[in-house]
Amino acid sequence: MAAYLNNQFCENDKAYLHVSDLSMQRGYGIFDFFRTENGIPLFMEDHLNRFYASAEAMHLPMRKSREELSSIIHDLINKSALTEAGIRIMLTGGYSADSYHPAEPNLLITCNPVKTSTEADFEKGFSIITHEHQRELPHVKSINYLMAVWLQPLLKEKKADDLLYFKNNIITEFPRSNVFIVTASNTLVTPLNNILKGITRKNILSIASEMMTVEERNITVDELLNASEVFLTATTKRIIPIVKIDGRIIVNGKPGIVTSSLYQKFIELEKSFTHLVSR
Amino acid sequence: MAAYLNNQFCENDKAYLHVSDLSMQRGYGIFDFFRTENGIPLFMEDHLNRFYASAEAMHLPMRKSREELSSIIHDLINKSALTEAGIRIMLTGGYSADSYHPAEPNLLITCNPVKTSTEADFEKGFSIITHEHQRELPHVKSINYLMAVWLQPLLKEKKADDLLYFKNNIITEFPRSNVFIVTASNTLVTPLNNILKGITRKNILSIASEMMTVEERNITVDELLNASEVFLTATTKRIIPIVKIDGRIIVNGKPGIVTSSLYQKFIELEKSFTHLVSR
Repeated sequence: MAAYLNNQFCENDKAYLHVSDLSMQRGYGIFDFFRTENGIPLFMEDHLNRFYASAEAMHLPMRKSREELSSIIHDLINKSALTEAGIRIMLTGGYSADSYHPAEPNLLITCNPVKTSTEADFEKGFSIITHEHQRELPHVKSINYLMAVWLQPLLKEKKADDLLYFKNNIITEFPRSNVFIVTASNTLVTPLNNILKGITRKNILSIASEMMTVEERNITVDELLNASEVFLTATTKRIIPIVKIDGRIIVNGKPGIVTSSLYQKFIELEKSFTHLVSR
Repeated sequence: MAAYLNNQFCENDKAYLHVSDLSMQRGYGIFDFFRTENGIPLFMEDHLNRFYASAEAMHLPMRKSREELSSIIHDLINKSALTEAGIRIMLTGGYSADSYHPAEPNLLITCNPVKTSTEADFEKGFSIITHEHQRELPHVKSINYLMAVWLQPLLKEKKADDLLYFKNNIITEFPRSNVFIVTASNTLVTPLNNILKGITRKNILSIASEMMTVEERNITVDELLNASEVFLTATTKRIIPIVKIDGRIIVNGKPGIVTSSLYQKFIELEKSFTHLVSR
């Protein structure tokens, strides 16, 4: 396991920041996260696009060029000697003199073993609960997961795998995943507003658009509960069918036909991607 | 300058946390902050009450007893050799194995020089802007200041000193201060709901209740703009008159009679407190 802190590589267990960093003082920082398969980073260009966009939206100057950053990440993957890893790039508010105003950002990249969802996880699906909340600055991949971490005891109490945020009766996203529904008329729909646009979400929209009608628009809680199929998408989870919502079984509690088809096609996309890049 | 990290004292410049800490990974942690004068911590019991309440509300187990914590803080003040200092006690989500679920919390206490508002700051007052936003878990002193830090360029652009949050036309608080108004009928009013209850706020309510009618209740933006006097309260700022709101001068742009009187009495309370404790 290796890491990169500002201008040098270090062992992961040496990746420390001083407590004056604004991430610790005020929860101020951004990040992005992607996986490698066979040592090849998956959809890295999309993740880097989002990382630079998050940095700009948060007024955090990113000093490394795209080319420098890519090169560092590839070196880090090589140093880590992990074929399947999670890469986390983080840019913080820096060592603030007054604990409030941002300073020169700290750039930190880690490469660690990662747990990816399995075929069995897909078959089992997720039982979820809904929770009224709107994330702050949802279009930015900030480190603010206050509500998500705070609600973990509630998830445990409800024996649920995850929670889906809604606000004013419109569903938005999971803390770390996007949501999709398949309607009775076989249209694939996913929220458009007040969300973080996931990279898996983008890939699924692309794959699905060749199979069926696809819409990005508001979805009410009622439409969710009456959907033919519901699933989530995320980098480490790919696609997970939602089989229960607030204790109510969705369809027959099994992965739906569209969900299963998209899952297969997404696995193929990942394979073609690693094949293409590795040639 | 000295610090205390988990079970030992260290130099402030050695106070580092590993990047796996949930404060950096997910902005998850709480803190409290108070000042010393002549080496005596001001209103420390109130701050410790709030610190333990924040820890409990955030499901973060605090392993040190009240007595142990007080003793550590007093030792830290002595080691730091600062007569006027800012003490920051912080409890984080800990070194999380999966970057998401809390682990054993890290306890960190720092003692640093502090800049306190002066008589001149009081005379000058603050020009502020209003901004629609509601903090997440407002009753907890969490490290989440995402919106406040993010809005700093807006403050600069508007040439304002601070910003006051409101939601659905009801004002709540500044990012780090409470708000008070004096009405035309000479009643002191401060918001009750969806705020962090400051220690200076508590002291001002206590002082004022012997001088005038005091109310804790909702205040609309309109009532704010038509108030006789407006001021904020905070640990490092004590009381600062608000002389301009969204470009509109409040009364005549000078500290009001009630505000000035409360300021004098609060300074006296601080003095009596340090005198009382130091006897």
